[in-house]
Amino acid sequence: MQGDEKNGGKIEFTFRSETGDIKGQMVMQVTELTPDKNVRWQCVDGPPEWIGTNITFDLSQQEDQTIIIFGHRNWRESIEFTAHCSMKWAIFLLSLREYVETGKGKPSPQDVKIDNWN
Amino acid sequence: MQGDEKNGGKIEFTFRSETGDIKGQMVMQVTELTPDKNVRWQCVDGPPEWIGTNITFDLSQQEDQTIIIFGHRNWRESIEFTAHCSMKWAIFLLSLREYVETGKGKPSPQDVKIDNWN
Repeated sequence: MQGDEKNGGKIEFTFRSETGDIKGQMVMQVTELTPDKNVRWQCVDGPPEWIGTNITFDLSQQEDQTIIIFGHRNWRESIEFTAHCSMKWAIFLLSLREYVETGKGKPSPQDVKIDNWN
Repeated sequence: MQGDEKNGGKIEFTFRSETGDIKGQMVMQVTELTPDKNVRWQCVDGPPEWIGTNITFDLSQQEDQTIIIFGHRNWRESIEFTAHCSMKWAIFLLSLREYVETGKGKPSPQDVKIDNWN
C-alpha cells in the first residue's frame, strides 16, 4: 500500500501471493476524510468491476465501542466476484479489529483464505 | 432452530442471549432445495426488514473445494441493520466452514460478536 491518504489523494493497494507475485492492484481516490468520522474512496483503477465504485467507512462511538459502517457500493451488477469481495471485506474488517485491539492483524498474504481465487 | 427443511417447509430460527433470553426470531419458507446444488429460502416472519427477502446458498465444486455463493437479497433499503446482518452472515459462513471441516462451529450464542446489537 502506498500513496497519499489525504482528501483528494490517491492510494494504491497491491495484493501479492506468498511468493511475491502480484495478484491484484487497485487505486483509490480519497473523496472525503474526516478524522474519527468517515473515510470515502472512489476506485479509479483496478479490476474493471471496481472502477467507479465507492468504498465508505463511517465511524461512530456507541457507549464504549467504535462502530464502523462499511460499504462498497455502486457495483454495476452483482456477480460471483461481488460475493468474493464482500466476504473478503468481512475478513479484512475482522483483521482490522484484531489489529486495533491487539496491535497485530492479518494483512494479505496472511489473510484468511475463503476460496480458490486467493 | 426447528421446522421442516424440505421444499415448501418452514424453518424457525431463534437467537438467544447466553442467559437464554430470546433476542430474535425469524421464519424461513424453503422455496428450493436441490442437494449438493442449492437452497433458497424466503423470509416469511421476523424482523420487518427481513420479511420478503430471499436467502440463497448456491453450491459448486471447483477442483477440490466446495464454493458457496451466498446471497441475502431484496432488502427494501440498505440501512445500518443491513450492514450488521451482512457482517453476521460472514461470521456464520466462517462458522459453517469450521463446522464442516472440524465438526465444531460457533453457533449463536457462541458466535463472534461484532457490535452492540449482539
